[in-house]
Amino acid sequence: MTEHLEASAGVRRTSMTLADGREIIYFDDSEPYRSGARIRDVVDQRPLVGRPVAGMMRLDALTGEWVSIADHRQDRTFLPPADECPLCPSGGGTMPSEIPAHEYDVVVFENRFPSFASQPLGAGGSSGAGGHAADTPGVNPLLANAPALGRCEVVCFTSDHDASFSSLSVERARTVVDVWADRTRELSAMDGVEHVFCFENRGQEIGVTLHHPHGQIYAYPFVPARSASLLRQATEHHQRSGRLLGGDLLAAELEAGSRVVIKGTYWTAYVPYAARWPVEVHLAPNRDVPDLVALRSEERDELAEVYLDLLRRLDSYYEGPDGSPIEMPYIAGWHQAPVHQGREVSRLHLQAMSVLRAPGRLKYLAGSESGAGAWINDVTPERVAARLREVG
Amino acid sequence: MTEHLEASAGVRRTSMTLADGREIIYFDDSEPYRSGARIRDVVDQRPLVGRPVAGMMRLDALTGEWVSIADHRQDRTFLPPADECPLCPSGGGTMPSEIPAHEYDVVVFENRFPSFASQPLGAGGSSGAGGHAADTPGVNPLLANAPALGRCEVVCFTSDHDASFSSLSVERARTVVDVWADRTRELSAMDGVEHVFCFENRGQEIGVTLHHPHGQIYAYPFVPARSASLLRQATEHHQRSGRLLGGDLLAAELEAGSRVVIKGTYWTAYVPYAARWPVEVHLAPNRDVPDLVALRSEERDELAEVYLDLLRRLDSYYEGPDGSPIEMPYIAGWHQAPVHQGREVSRLHLQAMSVLRAPGRLKYLAGSESGAGAWINDVTPERVAARLREVG
Repeated sequence: MTEHLEASAGVRRTSMTLADGREIIYFDDSEPYRSGARIRDVVDQRPLVGRPVAGMMRLDALTGEWVSIADHRQDRTFLPPADECPLCPSGGGTMPSEIPAHEYDVVVFENRFPSFASQPLGAGGSSGAGGHAADTPGVNPLLANAPALGRCEVVCFTSDHDASFSSLSVERARTVVDVWADRTRELSAMDGVEHVFCFENRGQEIGVTLHHPHGQIYAYPFVPARSASLLRQATEHHQRSGRLLGGDLLAAELEAGSRVVIKGTYWTAYVPYAARWPVEVHLAPNRDVPDLVALRSEERDELAEVYLDLLRRLDSYYEGPDGSPIEMPYIAGWHQAPVHQGREVSRLHLQAMSVLRAPGRLKYLAGSESGAGAWINDVTPERVAARLREVG
Repeated sequence: MTEHLEASAGVRRTSMTLADGREIIYFDDSEPYRSGARIRDVVDQRPLVGRPVAGMMRLDALTGEWVSIADHRQDRTFLPPADECPLCPSGGGTMPSEIPAHEYDVVVFENRFPSFASQPLGAGGSSGAGGHAADTPGVNPLLANAPALGRCEVVCFTSDHDASFSSLSVERARTVVDVWADRTRELSAMDGVEHVFCFENRGQEIGVTLHHPHGQIYAYPFVPARSASLLRQATEHHQRSGRLLGGDLLAAELEAGSRVVIKGTYWTAYVPYAARWPVEVHLAPNRDVPDLVALRSEERDELAEVYLDLLRRLDSYYEGPDGSPIEMPYIAGWHQAPVHQGREVSRLHLQAMSVLRAPGRLKYLAGSESGAGAWINDVTPERVAARLREVG
């Protein structure tokens, strides 16, 4: 199943199936695959059986939030020896890599131990995606659960194990933008999916154990808590003013100027006024768009450039004692409009943040943040923005 | 200024002033101070000047949450050498300890580098506690700020540097309960305080650098995000059912039974149905009470016992390779009714949680949790409860 991506004639998309039935999708932006001179035909020969099944999610009645209880992930047998990276191309052998091909550009596959999966567990759960045990007679509505239906995908940005997103070429970053948009479009169309979140965790400081450059995409069967909070505020602002909160906030930041880091034709990067992380940057399109799918070609082109610029600034932000730059650990995630709710008031933006508050010193989310939900930030956003402008 | 605590005739309370004007309160539960045979009279002789002033808090328009930008805390000059603990008694000398006394039982003092303080910064801020810059003409309402008015206190549980809360005597734990109640009552009465949060951070894994056993109390000038979320759900439940969510949830847990850890006359400890941390326990009174202040003497007595029991179970939860117990890092915080809002629907409970998901392995709050706000827990609450019952 090969096709060219809508938005980018330069990328060929080939969907295949792994040994256990999971989907793997190659996004080729280089020859000989891009033009179809050669086709993706390496078959996964591992003795895997059974597509991953959905675990359970439970409703936290105290907060109204769903928590995925991914107990089945404890059985992760697939922990490769340190010298065998599961995200490197394996070349069709029986090595424990997730990617059968000999080589790839960008590849996406379903997570083998997902927090959300499209296959319900045989007998488990209650009344379908998003359904409450509350609907089942005799079950206490305060102890509601549902199968954790959805999908979790891994996105490998390059087959080069030692690269990082910030070291990708602009062309490759452009491909990743198309991939995010492609996955958002497809996952949004899946039954029961309410929110699609594309993100990258980078660095041991936030628990990353696979160093191969990769991101993840979660398709949730609900609107997650932070997204719900963004939606609530955006809806309120829209009802009050008839305008988009995201757009008004961008205008306010542009007017203030002191926290703006990058000003592009189509994109603006700024440290938010009330940043809660020691390093936090938002990247927003200058035009009102709900999600990555809605981005035009020229916006995607500039996004590739601006995002690389931003990541490189993050990697120059701190210096070691000898003046050498320190790789910034970060979480970078795309806040998109939920799939069905409040699309008309939501506005796309990326949030990149780091727990590193000084070289070798982390911010911990302790009592005030984790217990009460009140954030304390010891660094002024204007200072962070000044440093990010300086290292550009 | 000495007085006996309302709820406990066995504790003498003496309020004094540190060199820079901060309040320090001794809670004496042992002789010769308890009976007044000797009185607290050691004066702080350090050359400190000026009470701490409030920094700024900013409104995060995207989420509607206040973030304290505690930039002034960066100037913490008061970092004692490793061998000089600021929480040990200093005996009135010029050593850099915060406690002038030669010895103490429990002591509370205002944090020297607080995230919230009762003294506004000379010229800063906008329109008073909780006020928005929105009220100031010409200022963009999306970039609102206010002085971070409130109070942050440190509670030392014992003068024994090497102890821990779990190693306290029942009598001492009982004193701490009275201290929490006393502080909640006093701080709630302060102008502008909307929420009082008593908590303890324990363990290097969550960033604790002072090992002397101590907790903290934050008096916020707003209802923090998690508390607001609890309040929202409790209000909704009350409107729907005329009942307290906390009470109904406790009844549901008692009926289910599988997650109950300790069943006392006045208190129940249970792992919540939708626990989000790898180890999480809630401790709730069997009677509907809004906050610690409302606890009766017999409830406080049992709380001291049950809480110690719970903490000791946490310290026996994991074992090292040689079978020796591993000290559990934890955050333990009291969710109380907000000071002014929704007191009639709120119900007191303690939330204790740990990031340790196996010996030497931490749970990280990465993309899904920190970015989207969707929690994934790899451990089933029933399994955690079974282990906590086992180690009792």
